[in-house]
Amino acid sequence: MARQSSWSSRTLAHFRQGGKLEPFRLLRQDARNLRRRWVSDWTVFNQLVVASAVYVFFTNILPGITFASDLYVLTGRSWGTVEVVFSTGLCGVIFAVFSAQPLTILGVTGPFSVLAENLYELCSDGFKVPFLPVMAWSLIHSAWMHYLLAIFNAHDWTMQYVTDFSADIFSLLNSIIYFHKAAMELKRTHEQMPLDSFLYAMIGAVGTCLVAILLSTATKWKPLFGRVIRMGLSEYAAAISIILFIGIPYIGDLADLDHGRLAVQTSFRPTNPEREVFFVRFWELPVEWVFISIIPGAIITILFYFDHEISSIICTVDRYGVKKPGGYAWDIALLGTTTALCGILGIPPANGLLPQAPLHSESLRHWVVDEDQVVPAPEEEEEEEESGAHTNLVPRVYEQRYSHFLQAAMIMVFVNPPFQRVLGLTPTSVLAGLFMFMGYQSLSVNPMLTRFFHLFTPPSELPELPAGVRWGGVHAYTVTQILVTVGIFAVTLTVAAPGFPLLIIILVPVRLCVMNRVWGREALRFVDGWACREGKPEDGEMVGGDEGFVAGGRDVEDGGERSKSQ
Amino acid sequence: MARQSSWSSRTLAHFRQGGKLEPFRLLRQDARNLRRRWVSDWTVFNQLVVASAVYVFFTNILPGITFASDLYVLTGRSWGTVEVVFSTGLCGVIFAVFSAQPLTILGVTGPFSVLAENLYELCSDGFKVPFLPVMAWSLIHSAWMHYLLAIFNAHDWTMQYVTDFSADIFSLLNSIIYFHKAAMELKRTHEQMPLDSFLYAMIGAVGTCLVAILLSTATKWKPLFGRVIRMGLSEYAAAISIILFIGIPYIGDLADLDHGRLAVQTSFRPTNPEREVFFVRFWELPVEWVFISIIPGAIITILFYFDHEISSIICTVDRYGVKKPGGYAWDIALLGTTTALCGILGIPPANGLLPQAPLHSESLRHWVVDEDQVVPAPEEEEEEEESGAHTNLVPRVYEQRYSHFLQAAMIMVFVNPPFQRVLGLTPTSVLAGLFMFMGYQSLSVNPMLTRFFHLFTPPSELPELPAGVRWGGVHAYTVTQILVTVGIFAVTLTVAAPGFPLLIIILVPVRLCVMNRVWGREALRFVDGWACREGKPEDGEMVGGDEGFVAGGRDVEDGGERSKSQ
Repeated sequence: MARQSSWSSRTLAHFRQGGKLEPFRLLRQDARNLRRRWVSDWTVFNQLVVASAVYVFFTNILPGITFASDLYVLTGRSWGTVEVVFSTGLCGVIFAVFSAQPLTILGVTGPFSVLAENLYELCSDGFKVPFLPVMAWSLIHSAWMHYLLAIFNAHDWTMQYVTDFSADIFSLLNSIIYFHKAAMELKRTHEQMPLDSFLYAMIGAVGTCLVAILLSTATKWKPLFGRVIRMGLSEYAAAISIILFIGIPYIGDLADLDHGRLAVQTSFRPTNPEREVFFVRFWELPVEWVFISIIPGAIITILFYFDHEISSIICTVDRYGVKKPGGYAWDIALLGTTTALCGILGIPPANGLLPQAPLHSESLRHWVVDEDQVVPAPEEEEEEEESGAHTNLVPRVYEQRYSHFLQAAMIMVFVNPPFQRVLGLTPTSVLAGLFMFMGYQSLSVNPMLTRFFHLFTPPSELPELPAGVRWGGVHAYTVTQILVTVGIFAVTLTVAAPGFPLLIIILVPVRLCVMNRVWGREALRFVDGWACREGKPEDGEMVGGDEGFVAGGRDVEDGGERSKSQ
Repeated sequence: MARQSSWSSRTLAHFRQGGKLEPFRLLRQDARNLRRRWVSDWTVFNQLVVASAVYVFFTNILPGITFASDLYVLTGRSWGTVEVVFSTGLCGVIFAVFSAQPLTILGVTGPFSVLAENLYELCSDGFKVPFLPVMAWSLIHSAWMHYLLAIFNAHDWTMQYVTDFSADIFSLLNSIIYFHKAAMELKRTHEQMPLDSFLYAMIGAVGTCLVAILLSTATKWKPLFGRVIRMGLSEYAAAISIILFIGIPYIGDLADLDHGRLAVQTSFRPTNPEREVFFVRFWELPVEWVFISIIPGAIITILFYFDHEISSIICTVDRYGVKKPGGYAWDIALLGTTTALCGILGIPPANGLLPQAPLHSESLRHWVVDEDQVVPAPEEEEEEEESGAHTNLVPRVYEQRYSHFLQAAMIMVFVNPPFQRVLGLTPTSVLAGLFMFMGYQSLSVNPMLTRFFHLFTPPSELPELPAGVRWGGVHAYTVTQILVTVGIFAVTLTVAAPGFPLLIIILVPVRLCVMNRVWGREALRFVDGWACREGKPEDGEMVGGDEGFVAGGRDVEDGGERSKSQ
């Protein structure tokens, strides 16, 4: 009995001031931080910001349209291009203005599409209820669940223990998913088109990717062109390559070929001809279904919560040198609001998008000396700089709202029929090429890549390790990460696909409890970057109970202006 | 009269000892040098030498076979693959053992093919005389003309004034010719094959080239693989890529496609069914035709002389740090001998091959400190090293006879029927890819490339120039070189094609007489590398007459063991 009462008093203590579950603690903090940063977010505007907006625009809208064509088929024409583009633009504009972390790009994600398609099948074939009102209620329920997560500081007791171990895996997973998407797109062309169309699709896809990669190295082309042109080519690499390969199929004999192109609609009205306006009369749903919708609402909440948090975490990893405070709780609350809004409008909701969010940060990255003075990006061997050859250069990201806002506004423009027709000129091969480029970009900055290479380096050429760390352990860690990634990827190919963020989450306690027993502390500090610098707190060791949580979360370490979780 | 006698005595003086035309002067010198170096040429053998042999083997035999298929059609089946491969192997083996400069790779060249085709047309359609005996006599005449050129030190009064100005142009010309060949090969596929075959040919060609380029950067892949594997991949880049893309067309649907492949013969006997053995009964030719053959003999002599000398010059430019003495006169005499031999065997004669000869040197290049100690090639930013960042590293070439001998021996092996069948598996698209790669390799080391880039560099970012040199002048020089190259390339597209080495030769007096009046001495010293280092003699200024030839030729400058022209 005594033990029981002690347990409940300890539980209640969490809700008191300063407790883990103290309502609104994080939200208040986030609101304060947001107020502090908001005005300054509109004072940074330059060429790189515009280039970033253009890049994110393409990497956001084009893949979105492919999900749209799947959705179109698998939701009985309830949703199509218009809905996806509209949602991406609307949620993007809202987040650009009101979010706490404007680096996190939003879009309609693949996992959500799969979830929606399953729900549609249940509604139409199983229970014979209208899909859109059920979806609307699911999203409305999801909204208040988001609010609860925000109010009770969910970020503190879940995501702040996400270390590089999980973030690297998630990042690699996204690379693999994008390479796989590219392969699937080309496989579809192979199956449905004559051989010559397929062979051209290969040229178009590989060409789009390689030209983008080539142009992205333009900063190293010295002495060709001036610095401004080199940087421009590099910053607009993907956009230039996409536009080039949209044009090429119109040349010569290629014009007579059969090219698969993006399927788009050509009017701004709901895809389903039975709908007149973007509004769902959700209150007309039978009341029992209003309650049943809590179940899909909960699944969507879990999916969105983890997806959005992980997107925000990966786009603010150390490599980007983010200085301004984000606001996880605030953004989850805002996400709940846009989710409900999308439900009522009868469009698919958008949330944090991978790998677009970190690619957004990547495209805004530059180098500064002494925090203030902007210097040109190192033109040669950028990676070397990063590893500390010039310790006076530190990476920074232009933390502002323009790039997010501009890409969202451009996407909004593309719901207009004439612009949709332009999008419809894009061959699916260009899309496959863009997928490859995104996979490549995401992979090329993943710290696992170097450690993967180290697996194939003869011992004599391996760099020296800190005391207490052995290459055997580092290799085992790398192999573990790769196997886990492959395992999760295998899951994404099954019907359990929408559950994969949960797998990522399971990695966190595994990392904190199990892996500490296999690898020594020095080894983990070396490979799991977030705790590897001097002066940082030790790993959070989840041994006894709640009290065992040593302050070691992501927010705490970064110091400076970032919110402290206490 | 006095003037006349003075002129003839001055002319005679040239033939006396120490005179420009003193018979056998250069030959004696070359023989001495050859004796000094010959044994040491067989003491250098390592992995890079083998890799170089494999690389040169592919870049020699595959393009040779394409000339063979043209020859086959245009010489009424007098010559085909067997003859070209046989000649390349035989002349290669002879030069590997007996030449003074074993870096100069030999093969059957395009210009000679054009010349032979014209001669065949005259013989068979015009004068109704047998082609092979006329060709045999032409080559026999050519032999003694070669001997005369060698005996009277022709190198001294022609080629030693070839500066980087001409060598760069010739090198660029070869890049353009190879890119053009690749384009023509693909154009032929486009015209003769269905669209799907053409689209695959594009993939095969670009793929072969890009994979070869990618692998050739393997030395910079650190930390992936050990240094040995990285170097191996880099050294065998072209070979690996060629073998890969020979295999790919057998995969999946591609196996059903129509692939253009190299046309080869499958027995070791003369291509023409009327010939039994590789021997021409040249003495049976009517005697008037024996004398008429002097005319084609002279044309062939001019072509071979300039082609071979320029090949030898370009494969021993400063960049390669060649230390051992060559022997231009000796090699011309040897070339005369192999030329006559080929004539009697009834096979096309081989001579110095561009760009294979300099690519041979390139593939043997490594870096040494203090002349002796071998160091690993700089793995990152090799070009930087070259420009003097580490002044203690100097480039060297493994000067030996194994790589030349091995590639020639391998080519000899490929006259055997089963090996010929293997060659016949090569798609023409792979050949086009190899042409592109050779063009790229040749272009990437051409000093004109950087100066071409400088044309597009804004003035503020241009590097500093030595005193007295202005960018205006440098740019004008670069543009002049490019225009001249384009002009000569245009000539190679006309019937005057075989005469193009003459155009290169005309550049020498133009460079020495005309250009000195347009550009200042400092500017020329800066852009025309051969006279740009301290301690080197000034440009040879051909102003008054023979006496005006200041010792400023290529051989003189290199000092050390190399032959002096006095």
